[in-house]
Amino acid sequence: MSPDTLYGAIEAGGTKFMCAVGAGPGRIVRETRIPTTQPDETLAQVVEFFRPFVSDRSIGSLGIACFGPVDLDPRSPTFGYITATPKPGWSNTEVAPRLRRELDIPVQFDTDVSAAALGEYSWGAGRGFDPVLYLTIGTGIGGGIIINGTSLKGLVHPEMGHICIPHDTSRDPFPGACPFHGDCLEGLAAGPAVQKRLGRAGKDLSDDDPYWPLEAHYIALAVENFILTFSPRKVILGGGIMQRQFLFDLIRPEVRQLLNGYVQSPVLLEHMEEIIVPPGLGTQSGILGAIALAKTAG
Amino acid sequence: MSPDTLYGAIEAGGTKFMCAVGAGPGRIVRETRIPTTQPDETLAQVVEFFRPFVSDRSIGSLGIACFGPVDLDPRSPTFGYITATPKPGWSNTEVAPRLRRELDIPVQFDTDVSAAALGEYSWGAGRGFDPVLYLTIGTGIGGGIIINGTSLKGLVHPEMGHICIPHDTSRDPFPGACPFHGDCLEGLAAGPAVQKRLGRAGKDLSDDDPYWPLEAHYIALAVENFILTFSPRKVILGGGIMQRQFLFDLIRPEVRQLLNGYVQSPVLLEHMEEIIVPPGLGTQSGILGAIALAKTAG
Repeated sequence: MSPDTLYGAIEAGGTKFMCAVGAGPGRIVRETRIPTTQPDETLAQVVEFFRPFVSDRSIGSLGIACFGPVDLDPRSPTFGYITATPKPGWSNTEVAPRLRRELDIPVQFDTDVSAAALGEYSWGAGRGFDPVLYLTIGTGIGGGIIINGTSLKGLVHPEMGHICIPHDTSRDPFPGACPFHGDCLEGLAAGPAVQKRLGRAGKDLSDDDPYWPLEAHYIALAVENFILTFSPRKVILGGGIMQRQFLFDLIRPEVRQLLNGYVQSPVLLEHMEEIIVPPGLGTQSGILGAIALAKTAG
Repeated sequence: MSPDTLYGAIEAGGTKFMCAVGAGPGRIVRETRIPTTQPDETLAQVVEFFRPFVSDRSIGSLGIACFGPVDLDPRSPTFGYITATPKPGWSNTEVAPRLRRELDIPVQFDTDVSAAALGEYSWGAGRGFDPVLYLTIGTGIGGGIIINGTSLKGLVHPEMGHICIPHDTSRDPFPGACPFHGDCLEGLAAGPAVQKRLGRAGKDLSDDDPYWPLEAHYIALAVENFILTFSPRKVILGGGIMQRQFLFDLIRPEVRQLLNGYVQSPVLLEHMEEIIVPPGLGTQSGILGAIALAKTAG
């Protein structure tokens, strides 16, 4: 393909659908923001945005990075649907098949966080590394894993934000905020947990608030487990909470201390700053990941 | 290749090197057990066993399932070595390169537990499923993951036996037995932890000993985390401790309860007995995995 080949990309979130036409970082030629209202209305606007680019053949495929939960099983009758979401009106919404039908182009569909991982793997902090873990820590905690160049899909999409980790109730008596698991990782360390524990939102805390070492501690425990479980070459930490860059300086030494020399790797032992890194694409991991997805469409 | 193609296979352990010539389950035509004494002596006997099969061309490649830690990085000068093992005399031992040189055939090298995972994926309980997790729970706890048909290797070999899990010290005041991490999974649930906590070996406990639900609890926490992290389609639990089949009946409902309906999969919700299973190859996962490895040798 020529370097001028363009792709359609959607980062579908609970508040907006970011739609773009482009080829990679710095090469987004058109972009629009469509509010997430009701499926019929939102998806009709999405089709309207992309239709001219399909008609004049400037794009030949579409990648969708979608909020979840979604059905990623190609053998399922609801493949490409948003499934049981709490977002009003969006449960059991046909997304990928509908756009494929209405735009009549190949469509690739993945979770928002797996797409972000693919974006970082293609053009960002994960470029040239495999496996890559992208973890977003914000309103929720979610992760995407790129192994052998593609996002890991197993029996279901992984939900690594909900792993259990040690919770020392003498240090942190907060019982956890996850409606499913109480004090799982997300229940202890995502935005709503911070808000509920402290009565203030994370964004309202100063950088020297005494809470941050506890937040870093939970993230470090999770990162330790992911390193031990599948040994990623890059651990990319994104999302609202990780905008606080100083958290990296708390997390890295704690992960090294938790591993305690067990994993014999010079990089892990001496250069944790090369393993645990911020996103290379800033807030564009998702939409660029959707472009990377579109590039894989047949 | 004809169905009669034979392969060389080694399951290298701390007490013995099992060496075999065969083609798969029920098709092992020769087998021997060489004690693990000192590297020169043991490896010379290994070479002696395989040499006639190389000379008459009955085997064309060799697979090695090796105790660890091992160096699996093909770019490393010590690729195929046993590295910093506590086993006297075996630290920094050249294994795969030496056998390749002395036997002059292609050699594939992996950890014992990744090879066992490959064996189960090829012919056992994991056949037809991907990803597959094989977890061994015995003197230590280790895991191998097959993804896209090959064992996962990242920055280093995963050491998932050492993940941190919640440890309720009011239920179980035992501080943990891992010299690196104290109360990590292995520190709480491997054989030495059982022995140290109770003053008796696991094998000396009766099936109705009140300890077993606690053992099952720790295994269930770990399995929950692995399911959330990379969503295996089969979780195969082997090793000495899992010889107690009733543990499966304790682990499965607890994993389901821990997930608490978060992962929307009918199989996970209703048929946990199809996900969490014993090895299909019994105690032969490792040696058959070494044959499966040999089949991949170029």
